[in-house]
Amino acid sequence: MSSKATIAIVGQVRDVVVVGAGVVGSAIAYELSRRGADVLVVDYRGVGRGATQASAGMLAPYSEADRPGPLLTLGVRSLDLYDDFIDNVRADSGRAVAYARDGTLQVAVDEWEAERIERWAIELTASNVPCSFLDAAAARSAEPLLTPHARAAILIRAHGHVAARELALALVEAARARGATWHEPEPVRRVAALDRDMRVETSTSAIVARRVVLAAGSWSGSVAIEGLPPVPVRPVRGQLLQLAWSGEPLRRIVWGSGCYCVPMSDRSVLVGATVEDVGFDERATVDGVRGLLDAACALVPRAVEAGFLEARVGLRPGTPDALPVVGPAGGMPGLVYATGHYRNGVLLAPLTAAFVADLVIDGRRDPALDGLSPDRFSADPPGPLLDETHHAQPEV
Amino acid sequence: MSSKATIAIVGQVRDVVVVGAGVVGSAIAYELSRRGADVLVVDYRGVGRGATQASAGMLAPYSEADRPGPLLTLGVRSLDLYDDFIDNVRADSGRAVAYARDGTLQVAVDEWEAERIERWAIELTASNVPCSFLDAAAARSAEPLLTPHARAAILIRAHGHVAARELALALVEAARARGATWHEPEPVRRVAALDRDMRVETSTSAIVARRVVLAAGSWSGSVAIEGLPPVPVRPVRGQLLQLAWSGEPLRRIVWGSGCYCVPMSDRSVLVGATVEDVGFDERATVDGVRGLLDAACALVPRAVEAGFLEARVGLRPGTPDALPVVGPAGGMPGLVYATGHYRNGVLLAPLTAAFVADLVIDGRRDPALDGLSPDRFSADPPGPLLDETHHAQPEV
Repeated sequence: MSSKATIAIVGQVRDVVVVGAGVVGSAIAYELSRRGADVLVVDYRGVGRGATQASAGMLAPYSEADRPGPLLTLGVRSLDLYDDFIDNVRADSGRAVAYARDGTLQVAVDEWEAERIERWAIELTASNVPCSFLDAAAARSAEPLLTPHARAAILIRAHGHVAARELALALVEAARARGATWHEPEPVRRVAALDRDMRVETSTSAIVARRVVLAAGSWSGSVAIEGLPPVPVRPVRGQLLQLAWSGEPLRRIVWGSGCYCVPMSDRSVLVGATVEDVGFDERATVDGVRGLLDAACALVPRAVEAGFLEARVGLRPGTPDALPVVGPAGGMPGLVYATGHYRNGVLLAPLTAAFVADLVIDGRRDPALDGLSPDRFSADPPGPLLDETHHAQPEV
Repeated sequence: MSSKATIAIVGQVRDVVVVGAGVVGSAIAYELSRRGADVLVVDYRGVGRGATQASAGMLAPYSEADRPGPLLTLGVRSLDLYDDFIDNVRADSGRAVAYARDGTLQVAVDEWEAERIERWAIELTASNVPCSFLDAAAARSAEPLLTPHARAAILIRAHGHVAARELALALVEAARARGATWHEPEPVRRVAALDRDMRVETSTSAIVARRVVLAAGSWSGSVAIEGLPPVPVRPVRGQLLQLAWSGEPLRRIVWGSGCYCVPMSDRSVLVGATVEDVGFDERATVDGVRGLLDAACALVPRAVEAGFLEARVGLRPGTPDALPVVGPAGGMPGLVYATGHYRNGVLLAPLTAAFVADLVIDGRRDPALDGLSPDRFSADPPGPLLDETHHAQPEV
């Protein structure tokens, strides 16, 4: 049954093993469990300990995608799912999850940026996206704590934010309530096909499942997939500060050229984020912390009076084309990728969970997955195409 | 025996109860134990969790006291004890304690400071303190990582530093090895005389001892002393950063006008410290962290490449005359104060421990204690003077 006789197989054959308990893996585990699958999640770091822990939880597709295209389409679709997603998670977990859709105020402090923002407002309005261009006075009126140097701003009403790690922890509870189980063994080293099933191996044990979902974020490339190249995700470090706020709260997310400030509550503001290509280095740095503090105090001068709670660091899983990797690879239909969400893991979690559950449970493949296949990075054309009729409906 | 029948008395009568497990209380507990006393230390926050945890552990009496006087005399005396103190603690605890006597390099970046430093070097040299005045080139040669804006520096060779919380933890181990015990109940609320003994009360329990040492740092004033006014210590907040260093290490402590940088190891630098009169507020602040980061990068530009590990906060116990409070009060000879060390708790720990042990064990009173009595703050003259022959030699 296995070429590695020294590795003990743990437990029963599961319907699905999800590798990775960040916000994406947890959302997938919850959605699969909701639809009746028997799910095991493995993550030796614990829940939400990768990029999720250092995410400001911004839900801002119009800002994250700087032009129309698949990322914007995915972001808007996922944002549309968010109200129901949060309602379900809250109900099934019994936990509070901080979530707000107060909009974002994106601020220009020079004439060039002000003009860019004005053009952007015109374009969004033409696309029926509710937004307002605000001149300096209107911007200060919308957010009295804003720097007096603000020249203009755009208010995008649909945007919002969610407490990312709180969400991941609630997703875990919600999935548990629906029967999912959690396991924190050693790191997963290898995924291999095993007859019609799949095998997930650490250095000392193995789990057998009908399907495997790879949702390991920046660490996805370190899981060896038998017969396939590693998925080309790359860690992109983000540093984030948590401040203790007092006095008049920020009314909504304020976003400048050097940072964004996210009021998680009247008493807590997150300031993010650096974008750094430094490999698997999860340290905060003097340069990063100082840059964020300076930018926050420049954007919202009252930040200088805030308490400094901590600097957090996360490694976002970047991909060569800045799009996520979702769906099966040609060479191994039992494995579904759900990684490479870069800065948008929180935003795209509900849509990714729906995509994966549609595939695994219902055998439906959303057309949007065509652009998200892991095969797009292979130099060689993939092997035989996925035989969807054979694998799309496992006995779960 | 007690007017508070509802409070249970815990354990046997101890020789000495030390209230407070910071570096001062721990050093006293160790010294008393070394000399044969049966010691119990109480601190509900744990070991070194007050000012000690945010101390850079600088041993720099010539810099801390800006003129000749009792603080300088105490500091120099205590510094002279330090080598033996560390040897003993290491031997009795079996622990490593980072300790170095590499000197301090105090740096001037403008002409006014350079002249002040030069006068200071002349005065110290006249007092036979080994030091060197360095011009800009010599300063950069002594410390290649120094800012190119350095105009002059003074190198004071006797200075050094010790890892403060590491020291407190080692002192605890060393005292335990000598028979002391530790207790972390609720906060101590009240100390009272009880016949010839003393009684230390929390809200639910009491301990009886022959002598009590009050070493609760900034919290000393919140312990009610029966029949005496609270000791007027006042918290003075200090924020300190711990940086992860890489590349060429700092050679010794570098001290500028806005901060000092203390190389605890080749890979770890502490940057201190703010001095803030904000009451019992143990938060780090945006203003404090930003100020220290800016000052460190100005003094040692390579700091910008360092990792940011954490901001720590401590409340130093300040007193009206900036001198510690050591010795018994007139009204209650069974209670010995050992608090109010402000910025010099780590430096003065071995001398304070010797003073207290001399008093409690041997009945000897160092003449230096005349200036450190708690009675100096009383508006009213103290009650009957301490009858030292009666109380100086408890049966320990």
